[in-house]
Amino acid sequence: MIQFQCDYNEGAHPQILQRLAETNMEQTIGYGEDKYCEEARELIRKACDDSKIDVHFLVGGTQTNTTVIAHTLRPYQGVISAKSGHINVHETGAIEATGHKVLAIDSADGKLSAEQIEEAMLAHQNEDGPEHMVQPGMVYISMPTEVGTIYTSDELRVISQVCNKYDLPLFVDGARLGYGLCSPQSDLTLPLLTQLADVFYIGGTKVGALFGEAVVIRNERMKRDFRYSIKRHGGMLAKGRLLGIQFATLFTDGMYMHIAQHAIDQAMRIRSALHGKGITFLIDSPTNQQFPIFSNYQLELLSQKYLFSIWQKVDDSHTAVRICTSWATKTENVDQLIKDIEEL
Amino acid sequence: MIQFQCDYNEGAHPQILQRLAETNMEQTIGYGEDKYCEEARELIRKACDDSKIDVHFLVGGTQTNTTVIAHTLRPYQGVISAKSGHINVHETGAIEATGHKVLAIDSADGKLSAEQIEEAMLAHQNEDGPEHMVQPGMVYISMPTEVGTIYTSDELRVISQVCNKYDLPLFVDGARLGYGLCSPQSDLTLPLLTQLADVFYIGGTKVGALFGEAVVIRNERMKRDFRYSIKRHGGMLAKGRLLGIQFATLFTDGMYMHIAQHAIDQAMRIRSALHGKGITFLIDSPTNQQFPIFSNYQLELLSQKYLFSIWQKVDDSHTAVRICTSWATKTENVDQLIKDIEEL
Amino acid sequence: MIQFQCDYNEGAHPQILQRLAETNMEQTIGYGEDKYCEEARELIRKACDDSKIDVHFLVGGTQTNTTVIAHTLRPYQGVISAKSGHINVHETGAIEATGHKVLAIDSADGKLSAEQIEEAMLAHQNEDGPEHMVQPGMVYISMPTEVGTIYTSDELRVISQVCNKYDLPLFVDGARLGYGLCSPQSDLTLPLLTQLADVFYIGGTKVGALFGEAVVIRNERMKRDFRYSIKRHGGMLAKGRLLGIQFATLFTDGMYMHIAQHAIDQAMRIRSALHGKGITFLIDSPTNQQFPIFSNYQLELLSQKYLFSIWQKVDDSHTAVRICTSWATKTENVDQLIKDIEEL
Amino acid sequence: MIQFQCDYNEGAHPQILQRLAETNMEQTIGYGEDKYCEEARELIRKACDDSKIDVHFLVGGTQTNTTVIAHTLRPYQGVISAKSGHINVHETGAIEATGHKVLAIDSADGKLSAEQIEEAMLAHQNEDGPEHMVQPGMVYISMPTEVGTIYTSDELRVISQVCNKYDLPLFVDGARLGYGLCSPQSDLTLPLLTQLADVFYIGGTKVGALFGEAVVIRNERMKRDFRYSIKRHGGMLAKGRLLGIQFATLFTDGMYMHIAQHAIDQAMRIRSALHGKGITFLIDSPTNQQFPIFSNYQLELLSQKYLFSIWQKVDDSHTAVRICTSWATKTENVDQLIKDIEEL
Repeated sequence: MIQFQCDYNEGAHPQILQRLAETNMEQTIGYGEDKYCEEARELIRKACDDSKIDVHFLVGGTQTNTTVIAHTLRPYQGVISAKSGHINVHETGAIEATGHKVLAIDSADGKLSAEQIEEAMLAHQNEDGPEHMVQPGMVYISMPTEVGTIYTSDELRVISQVCNKYDLPLFVDGARLGYGLCSPQSDLTLPLLTQLADVFYIGGTKVGALFGEAVVIRNERMKRDFRYSIKRHGGMLAKGRLLGIQFATLFTDGMYMHIAQHAIDQAMRIRSALHGKGITFLIDSPTNQQFPIFSNYQLELLSQKYLFSIWQKVDDSHTAVRICTSWATKTENVDQLIKDIEEL
Repeated sequence: MIQFQCDYNEGAHPQILQRLAETNMEQTIGYGEDKYCEEARELIRKACDDSKIDVHFLVGGTQTNTTVIAHTLRPYQGVISAKSGHINVHETGAIEATGHKVLAIDSADGKLSAEQIEEAMLAHQNEDGPEHMVQPGMVYISMPTEVGTIYTSDELRVISQVCNKYDLPLFVDGARLGYGLCSPQSDLTLPLLTQLADVFYIGGTKVGALFGEAVVIRNERMKRDFRYSIKRHGGMLAKGRLLGIQFATLFTDGMYMHIAQHAIDQAMRIRSALHGKGITFLIDSPTNQQFPIFSNYQLELLSQKYLFSIWQKVDDSHTAVRICTSWATKTENVDQLIKDIEEL
Repeated sequence: MIQFQCDYNEGAHPQILQRLAETNMEQTIGYGEDKYCEEARELIRKACDDSKIDVHFLVGGTQTNTTVIAHTLRPYQGVISAKSGHINVHETGAIEATGHKVLAIDSADGKLSAEQIEEAMLAHQNEDGPEHMVQPGMVYISMPTEVGTIYTSDELRVISQVCNKYDLPLFVDGARLGYGLCSPQSDLTLPLLTQLADVFYIGGTKVGALFGEAVVIRNERMKRDFRYSIKRHGGMLAKGRLLGIQFATLFTDGMYMHIAQHAIDQAMRIRSALHGKGITFLIDSPTNQQFPIFSNYQLELLSQKYLFSIWQKVDDSHTAVRICTSWATKTENVDQLIKDIEEL
Repeated sequence: MIQFQCDYNEGAHPQILQRLAETNMEQTIGYGEDKYCEEARELIRKACDDSKIDVHFLVGGTQTNTTVIAHTLRPYQGVISAKSGHINVHETGAIEATGHKVLAIDSADGKLSAEQIEEAMLAHQNEDGPEHMVQPGMVYISMPTEVGTIYTSDELRVISQVCNKYDLPLFVDGARLGYGLCSPQSDLTLPLLTQLADVFYIGGTKVGALFGEAVVIRNERMKRDFRYSIKRHGGMLAKGRLLGIQFATLFTDGMYMHIAQHAIDQAMRIRSALHGKGITFLIDSPTNQQFPIFSNYQLELLSQKYLFSIWQKVDDSHTAVRICTSWATKTENVDQLIKDIEEL
């Protein structure tokens, strides 16, 4: 069975494993203060074109979201998110576990607009007795979103302006950041993202690493004592160098973007094949997640060879699935899938 | 500089890296439901001689302690711990972050006794208006403790009896479990620990793995929905197989105990050398952590070549340090250290 | 200015003040264990026709909701509520502050249906990887709702059946319970509510008391250690007798229902007058809260004499307001309002 | 049975009840924004001789402590307290429920010294890897303490200086503040306390009110959004005027200090009688709580007429008890007790 159901089916880019093996018996100090972490930080500062950012390495996405949000909010504040945001749906209440409400806003395509954010703030401020309601305290968006859509640099710029206007730190979940930046429809770059977001993270787990997320903090206020928050949330890896080595490898010679581009190329090939066959999509995604709507018969046929994520029943005879590519997707598997789509 | 300051200076046992490399491009499903995790679970069930235990894999110790304790306690309950317990001192309030008080009890050697636990329960029950105080809801002990001491099977048996009597689940933090079980003074085994504790974990981070802790749950009530708690605390690794592969390797052909024994052997050699030189110890530890008290001059000399943990100033001219060995400690480095001790 | 904007404008029923004065210098023990609390508990047990219920007295509604919900849920569980539920909107995230997500369900009239609850449970259970989402752990409904609507006994019975089927404790917020039970459209009684809900509370703050809510617990599992939860949430009044005296007075000679009936009678008079004038309503409420839609001109006229709650802008020229009556509403004030409505 | 076991046995000062009765049917807006609350705030500002302080009214002590502390601390910070501090012992983990550790320091007399606070800060700052431990974030002291002792103005001044030096807000729990200020050994005044503490509260529950604590905030940073925190912790009373009326009465014509003085006078009379009889004390308290050590025979005799708090078994034949006076203590009851002590 060829697996396309998610983007974390395999291990890590072979060069990462090799670097881990080469450095295995070296002795380093723990908790992210070793030379490999420092090297990775420097490489990321360069990639972001900002020498003043703080960079921290955490193990996973839920942990990272929780740590950043709990570190930033005052106790009575909540975080604005699209209803489909990962923190609102698929983290078993990890944000609420830290005492904060997710202020969920409806969104058809997984994105928030600057207008929606401003409306939410104005609605709160205009409330009679605002202290009876949770105060919006930061904004969480995903790039790309959970359904594969992306923000253009213009969209992000106005969001950032609204956030500044209302003193709402802007947090960008980049669990799949590479796949967003490499989309043919994206005009966003890492340096621009660094300027527009107060804090964001560069996802490693889904883009070439065994695991790991690199948090980039530009906002001065948020830098203070962030290591306390990492530790408090159980995110401080004893052998922190494992994260340093992985991210140093990913940010050497442009590997991160290079391997993300591969995933996008493969996804675009699948997308074209589906389009060519007249198959429609639940969401128009320009990234590594594609959401075609198959007839039940088509799905049955393909499911004999391929594993997809069942996303949503569309009607009695149609189902939307998620097909993911990743840095690890084999071209020959995509060739095979395209052939089978064409023969549907 | 040769590092003896902790037991997580190196990467992982080479066989683990090899297994990760061999399986790297295999596709598996995520979140700990793959075949490698299943294999590791079976191997641990055999090592514990109990086919009914639940086994879960988490990334690190603070995360594991937090998840187990928050999963077990009712909101108004606290966890009994020695004052020196890791959860009380070195987890940045991660337990309190979940709403629970650590009920800390003084202990000279890092251990709790059955009597102390019973006293704490009786003191609470005899209180006039016990509901004004936190109710003791479980017991946390470390094996070995944070200062290297261990529980005998008799000590653990009476602790377990008291815990049963008062319906207090017994949780054993086994971050260094291998080093405790392999101590020449230990008569405890994994099967016996499984019978006596309601829940415990087998530390991988400090005993041969890159990272990872295997939680063993025997108590039926605690089994329910544990995966929800893992996820809520950000501990569910996307590529769960990384943990499965590591623990399957550690529990094949007795590797876990074998490599732990190496650390103990080296620690005992260092201990003998120190004893031979007339150096006294802050704590009498039979495991991989040794706490000699050096004169400042001795420490200065040794510090030119070796990195130790500064543990505690004993008086103006003496300092206690921690010397750790581990699965990765090189015999030649210990040879060298012993020689330098003898020449002090 | 005559105030109709809420149902807590005045102090308490004069008999309550008189009883407080009469008993003022008596010495009693604290924290709700005095004879007046015991007397009130017995009277409420009789009114509920159930001698086995536990009855606890708390000071306010947010505190009561928080305490009951946090006491009941497992850490990874959330509480199902209508989107307009008080806990979801107007408690500044007090539920989330205890670590729990409010699982909000859309509702046009402030009510949840048994079908909606069942759908939510099935959606969760059918999820692939349910542990990535918050588990529904109890159901919160308000009787009457925040917009004045009520549940019939048939509606409540099927809700209760669904809750039992999925082992979801049913919690009924009765901040305005008297006004719900006295509605001409209500066929619910206190004994029936006691049978159908696992836990509910009888609101005093809005129905005759200075302050206070009486929590009634029928579910055996929830009874255990509830006083610990009250104290932990800061809800254990030192001079607990103040609550006992108030509820004993309210439940002597049927005062609670009697004074609630007065509020309903006055609300129905206002409602008739508005209907008679052809004024439409935002919500069709059979209780003490009425939500007429005034033209801006009408509102301007009435606002010279009366204080209403501005509820919602309906269109550029119309606004919905809330008009509340209560146990304290003076008949002559209602007479005056009706006259002014008729003259609009 | 004459009750001396605590200082909340009776209702409220009769003038308070009278004011509640006089204003009972007036209509006011809710949640502490009515004219009575405003009046009380002004009176307290005058009594504190500081027109810029914020004043908020809450219902009870645990609620107040929790709200102030959770409002002030960053998530990874804890609050320094004497081990015997109310927040560490008798609040069922309400502070931990908000995610914060109580950093308890041993104290023989219930007080903290400036030296102890400085030591705690230096110990934290000198730690290798301070982020593995909870960061001290504020200081909690009680005036008078839980065992009746008091801080002199000099002691408080140096504590305040240390707190400023380390940017630790100083919070003074004044549940029994009146009894502390009126002690013959006290040289502290309300204006001086206002200058030295960042935040404190004036206890009403134990000093003349039915219930209620007035929080005084001088620290500018802590003022922001405090009403959100009150609401989030369930402490915002719907009929806030009940608190306003009570505190306005207490702070009219010096009533608060006047009635506190009565309690102190009676306590000093009892103390003298005990001293005269050669009875020793567990703690030397100059306030309304006295802790004599009775022989079991003496205690048995007195217990036929009087209710005391059993505080602590001193040895097999002696027991320390707590005898409390309050604003409500009847002189004739004290006369009787003194006579009975003299006849022991």
